[in-house]
Amino acid sequence: MTDAPSAAYGVHSEVGTLRKVLVCAPGLAHRRLTPSNNDDLLFDDVMWVENAQRDHADFVNKLTTRGVEVVELHDLLTETMRDPEARAWLLDRKIVANEVGLGLVDDTRAFLESLDPRQLAEYLIGGLATSDLPDDFRPAYIALARESAGVREYLMPPLPNTLYTRDTTCWLYGGVTLNPLYWPARHDETLLMKAIYQFHPDFVGATVWWGDPDVDWGQATFEGGDIMPVGNGVVLMGMSERTSRQAITQVASALFEQGAAERVVVAGMPKLRAAMHLDTVFTFADRDIVTLFPTIMDAVHTFSLRPGDNAKDINITDHETTPFVDVVAESLGLPELRVVETGGDAYQSERQQWDSGNNAVALSPGVVFTYDRNTLTNTLLRKAGVEVITIVGAELGRGRGGGHCMTCPIIRDPVTY
Amino acid sequence: MTDAPSAAYGVHSEVGTLRKVLVCAPGLAHRRLTPSNNDDLLFDDVMWVENAQRDHADFVNKLTTRGVEVVELHDLLTETMRDPEARAWLLDRKIVANEVGLGLVDDTRAFLESLDPRQLAEYLIGGLATSDLPDDFRPAYIALARESAGVREYLMPPLPNTLYTRDTTCWLYGGVTLNPLYWPARHDETLLMKAIYQFHPDFVGATVWWGDPDVDWGQATFEGGDIMPVGNGVVLMGMSERTSRQAITQVASALFEQGAAERVVVAGMPKLRAAMHLDTVFTFADRDIVTLFPTIMDAVHTFSLRPGDNAKDINITDHETTPFVDVVAESLGLPELRVVETGGDAYQSERQQWDSGNNAVALSPGVVFTYDRNTLTNTLLRKAGVEVITIVGAELGRGRGGGHCMTCPIIRDPVTY
Amino acid sequence: MTDAPSAAYGVHSEVGTLRKVLVCAPGLAHRRLTPSNNDDLLFDDVMWVENAQRDHADFVNKLTTRGVEVVELHDLLTETMRDPEARAWLLDRKIVANEVGLGLVDDTRAFLESLDPRQLAEYLIGGLATSDLPDDFRPAYIALARESAGVREYLMPPLPNTLYTRDTTCWLYGGVTLNPLYWPARHDETLLMKAIYQFHPDFVGATVWWGDPDVDWGQATFEGGDIMPVGNGVVLMGMSERTSRQAITQVASALFEQGAAERVVVAGMPKLRAAMHLDTVFTFADRDIVTLFPTIMDAVHTFSLRPGDNAKDINITDHETTPFVDVVAESLGLPELRVVETGGDAYQSERQQWDSGNNAVALSPGVVFTYDRNTLTNTLLRKAGVEVITIVGAELGRGRGGGHCMTCPIIRDPVTY
Amino acid sequence: MTDAPSAAYGVHSEVGTLRKVLVCAPGLAHRRLTPSNNDDLLFDDVMWVENAQRDHADFVNKLTTRGVEVVELHDLLTETMRDPEARAWLLDRKIVANEVGLGLVDDTRAFLESLDPRQLAEYLIGGLATSDLPDDFRPAYIALARESAGVREYLMPPLPNTLYTRDTTCWLYGGVTLNPLYWPARHDETLLMKAIYQFHPDFVGATVWWGDPDVDWGQATFEGGDIMPVGNGVVLMGMSERTSRQAITQVASALFEQGAAERVVVAGMPKLRAAMHLDTVFTFADRDIVTLFPTIMDAVHTFSLRPGDNAKDINITDHETTPFVDVVAESLGLPELRVVETGGDAYQSERQQWDSGNNAVALSPGVVFTYDRNTLTNTLLRKAGVEVITIVGAELGRGRGGGHCMTCPIIRDPVTY
Repeated sequence: MTDAPSAAYGVHSEVGTLRKVLVCAPGLAHRRLTPSNNDDLLFDDVMWVENAQRDHADFVNKLTTRGVEVVELHDLLTETMRDPEARAWLLDRKIVANEVGLGLVDDTRAFLESLDPRQLAEYLIGGLATSDLPDDFRPAYIALARESAGVREYLMPPLPNTLYTRDTTCWLYGGVTLNPLYWPARHDETLLMKAIYQFHPDFVGATVWWGDPDVDWGQATFEGGDIMPVGNGVVLMGMSERTSRQAITQVASALFEQGAAERVVVAGMPKLRAAMHLDTVFTFADRDIVTLFPTIMDAVHTFSLRPGDNAKDINITDHETTPFVDVVAESLGLPELRVVETGGDAYQSERQQWDSGNNAVALSPGVVFTYDRNTLTNTLLRKAGVEVITIVGAELGRGRGGGHCMTCPIIRDPVTY
Repeated sequence: MTDAPSAAYGVHSEVGTLRKVLVCAPGLAHRRLTPSNNDDLLFDDVMWVENAQRDHADFVNKLTTRGVEVVELHDLLTETMRDPEARAWLLDRKIVANEVGLGLVDDTRAFLESLDPRQLAEYLIGGLATSDLPDDFRPAYIALARESAGVREYLMPPLPNTLYTRDTTCWLYGGVTLNPLYWPARHDETLLMKAIYQFHPDFVGATVWWGDPDVDWGQATFEGGDIMPVGNGVVLMGMSERTSRQAITQVASALFEQGAAERVVVAGMPKLRAAMHLDTVFTFADRDIVTLFPTIMDAVHTFSLRPGDNAKDINITDHETTPFVDVVAESLGLPELRVVETGGDAYQSERQQWDSGNNAVALSPGVVFTYDRNTLTNTLLRKAGVEVITIVGAELGRGRGGGHCMTCPIIRDPVTY
Repeated sequence: MTDAPSAAYGVHSEVGTLRKVLVCAPGLAHRRLTPSNNDDLLFDDVMWVENAQRDHADFVNKLTTRGVEVVELHDLLTETMRDPEARAWLLDRKIVANEVGLGLVDDTRAFLESLDPRQLAEYLIGGLATSDLPDDFRPAYIALARESAGVREYLMPPLPNTLYTRDTTCWLYGGVTLNPLYWPARHDETLLMKAIYQFHPDFVGATVWWGDPDVDWGQATFEGGDIMPVGNGVVLMGMSERTSRQAITQVASALFEQGAAERVVVAGMPKLRAAMHLDTVFTFADRDIVTLFPTIMDAVHTFSLRPGDNAKDINITDHETTPFVDVVAESLGLPELRVVETGGDAYQSERQQWDSGNNAVALSPGVVFTYDRNTLTNTLLRKAGVEVITIVGAELGRGRGGGHCMTCPIIRDPVTY
Repeated sequence: MTDAPSAAYGVHSEVGTLRKVLVCAPGLAHRRLTPSNNDDLLFDDVMWVENAQRDHADFVNKLTTRGVEVVELHDLLTETMRDPEARAWLLDRKIVANEVGLGLVDDTRAFLESLDPRQLAEYLIGGLATSDLPDDFRPAYIALARESAGVREYLMPPLPNTLYTRDTTCWLYGGVTLNPLYWPARHDETLLMKAIYQFHPDFVGATVWWGDPDVDWGQATFEGGDIMPVGNGVVLMGMSERTSRQAITQVASALFEQGAAERVVVAGMPKLRAAMHLDTVFTFADRDIVTLFPTIMDAVHTFSLRPGDNAKDINITDHETTPFVDVVAESLGLPELRVVETGGDAYQSERQQWDSGNNAVALSPGVVFTYDRNTLTNTLLRKAGVEVITIVGAELGRGRGGGHCMTCPIIRDPVTY
């Protein structure tokens, strides 16, 4: 297996040179968003899909131009679906009576099998409504879906949050986690990623530290937006509504046991909607520069987890009132972290945090992508010596995620501290 | 197994003489309800637990006085937990790293094993907060639960909706279903019931038509409030937010295949909060009398499911504009059903439906229990010749369920049509 | 005017012997409450009106038995409406084109004029729906109200919050304020009270410190639940969402100028729903005993207002971190206040505050009324030597108000400190 | 007064050549919007103010280029504030104890008087926070505003909805209405407009049909988004949450009495959030072409109001099941209206209506402005022969208003039918 491309994969810092990254373009799933369903699908507003696609393509282009290899989820899934074994593995899990309903399994499966791999991938991410079934594949059972009464039922759910590839899987140093996500509306995202990691020739053989979508993880939910492999054997983990204590300890233990990390610094987040993920209020812009939203970060309670004396044991240090940034600096062997706060007055900083102002993703040390609309925070980053490349956020930002959320780094170099 | 008491169990109508019923008294789970968590736990308001207990005891007493054998969930669970095998089966499923967190499994399990069966049953239904762990059972890992910061975390979740025993399991003629419930906050209820059906000497050997809490049922959710075995081989099923097409077809197929029923009449409910379950807007008060809330029942779309030509096949009839009550009457071989609508003017009927005015449960043909507060609907029922016995609803009704919701009949006689 | 009964009126403390009090019985306005309108009418749930009436009558009876003269709003308004001048004054303000609609003024007025005073008072408090107009009084204009489409329109709005007579007017020592209430749904309550104070023989001639419903008070809103004339020339005022800085300074200035008070102690409340009024989290139970909810009271910021050098001037002291109870004790010349906190653990105290556990009203020093359901707080009060008389709160409490909210003292003796 | 420019003002149709129009550029008021206050200020999301300004300037530029005279609210208010009498009139109404608080009137007024007219106009529209007061103008009373505790209090409220100039005043043929708006958060908009109409040299002398911000209009609220002077003596009026029966009959009566109109066609709107104003679901694109959202327009109940036999009397016709578009066509003497529905499938049309897809404003017959993002509806309009000029809606549309909402026509030619 050592010849597999995946043997070279790994993310060794938050700001080292980014070499390969996974994104997901807006598409059919976002065309399904309406004012009456967007809350259920975790979006704050509907988006203009064509423009979101344009702005996403521009982001990808800027990444590519600067030498990053960008892989896209629809593409990867299309390639994966060319493998009959992979297709069977995935459809065996999705097209079952519990999901599509008795009497609809065969026809739905037959319709999906009739599609070419790209069309199939579109529906896997974009969802399949009962009304999408062509006449040849509509058994009498479809009557119960009550399309005529305006009910919109799905045989496969739309997955618009695939846009935020950061959350579903995390490369932590030389291996990956396949994350059980908090909201049921996102569960199937991990299934798609598992299919890719299990069958796609570029990914097969990758080391999986933790996670398996065939398992019910209960309260142990884990989302990449909370997770940062900062280097020096350290991983930062936001403990939030979406990333639970139950998952953090399991992943820490798995990483320690496999020698993948030596310390996990946990940011116990306050219970506030604006504090969804750690990366919505704290990201790295350079090896020793972070941008953060003080209103929330000041309320973080910090812990360190280290390997215990026996296998699977964890040693827990409660840092009590020591600020999170100080603990992080110490863990990296830095005298201190330079901090760039969200810019502007009370109105502006609250608005910019909301618009993903602190959700930067680094291309290399001191070079980051952020949304264009957070002009004040961007200016402060530039004054701190950071090169800021902007992405248009008018449409992409409406699900409350920025450049960090929309990228899942696959290969990123270490930095020295 | 024919000697088991469960061989005699079965519910053969909605109004035949009720002989044995399962209820669950208010308790620790309801003491956990506060204004800040009641929405998450599906209650509209907090309740005065002592008075709710008093009113529930009165309900039980009235049932007992009239000859019904009443079994109570805390009692059944206590008796079940006396069996070490049963205790192991249940704790093996609940006290796992995914739920309580790594490093807390052993101590939590040890604490629970140290309890007598009744205390254990209390915590199983009432929930176990991290702060409930005595000092001897608090490992260092507990720090991550941040009790000091006012966070309330549970090692086992409180299950206040056990009050509504109707939903979790359904006796349909001679067998039972173990229902996958819609809200994650209620999932563990089915696990408790499974333990009872698998290990309690009075229940072991019961025929299970469908359902198993060890399986992930996905979209196939099924709640007893939507299900009524009305007799004549017919089962009524409300197709609602909580009881899905995916489950209805599976259960119908299972019933047909095992010869348990010949027809399922499906009430396609409109998507409205007041239309939570079929039994919140429609119940039987006598063999040919129903009480219903017309505002919602007028919007129901009716289907009939019957066995198809091949095993597992279902034949679906769309009744289009035929009113639900007419289809039900026809299915029972009755010329018509007499209808008692929610009483009073527009204000009063809306309020009484909300206060479970149509949620009657029958003791025998023409004798029902309802809440005292729905005086107008109760009067109309009495004018129709029904004997109405009232329960105090001031506290019990705050979770939006009445006598029908609070009872799971285990033995009920058939009626003739 | 010195012969008028009102010359003897006045409230000189929070706990001195209560001699005369205004209440308002539940009635037609509460029959209008439904699950779809109760939020707009500021109620958390619908109530069983008959039982609320029974429990309210019991409260009144307990007050009367112990020597308090109780006057009731429907009665006072009935008596007031016997005076044609009073009726004209009130209907001239309510039955205008802006409220009932052009073309409906004459018929609506004619219908109301046709009623006897009690019926009229019922509609004034209970509201008049378009559908209440008898056929003889229904002009063609009524078509626009679209009753046939299920729209419920009011020619006079229902005023269910009159139940909480505390808020609408406040006796502060020898005079009264006619308060502009925060929510538009309550504005007309003050108009009814003004009619009584202007025309009812028992109230005419009362000193009005401040307030007039014919004036638009803008941001200057003031609610009696925030106001306490504790004696010693001091008035406590909660500065909350409902009682604004703009009103507090005006009332303080008016009181100082008229020699009615010497100091106002302002409790700057945090912005939380549970902190609606000061009396929902803090009331007096004896001359030096208060019951309070620490979670909220700990976040109060205290100021003192005293007369300035020139007329209308106010001198403001910012007490910064000094606890509110300490400032209140000092203002009364007491070494300290004894504090009875909301009883029970974290769950119970949160629930009891919600159920008006701290909303006690005193009959005399050390004798208070509270709701029965707050058993733990009641026990703590009793342990502190307070006599606690209970009221049934199952229905009355659903608008989130207790004994203090439901009473407007008119004559209460001073206490000595 | 015949020399006044306003003598020539008037709007005689919905699609005749537009000659003069009032708009309001985004500014300080929108910089005040944050995720925590935007709901209170009636916005669905925060906006990027600089880009909203750019897009608004482009809209103005396109109007100007095509020969429309555009006047802007900040400019008009600046010019008005140069008149000391106008400034006194307005500040006498806004800087009063009820709004700013006792003890803050003199300093606040002094600060505002110290500003040049443009700065003053900025604060009048953008709001004045207590923290905006310079040190020289901060009396001790400011302590009560608790800025240090993070409370944001306003001495003058921000008015971000001035962006939608359509609502505040309506030119209906040769005169204007000064509208009492539904939400308290918008009341002061009308005060600003009244100052302009009373004092600005270009507007003084205009005929006012109805409305005066010094009057409390109670339930009689009226918003321009519901009002369309379509020509032929007809005015369309949406009867909605925001435009009440009480106002419609008064305005109709005033128009009839002054000979301004002969008929009002009332669209009784269903109670749905998406049906905020008539112009959010129905506008004209040509003399006989309308664009509409069928889901809502199909539920409209139509009435006609005509002058009655006596002064102020109104004759009401209930059109019962006749579709609104048919009644409108008949009122204009047209055989029928051509209808362009919101484009796309169920998802797309719901989304485009939400994004103001039906909120077109005409430049001349068959030439309209709409947002760029509603590509499908725009295409359908073009296929119907309408010239569609697009405005960028990414930021401007976040308050749920389009080109029709953002314009208040002052001079528009009639069309012949």
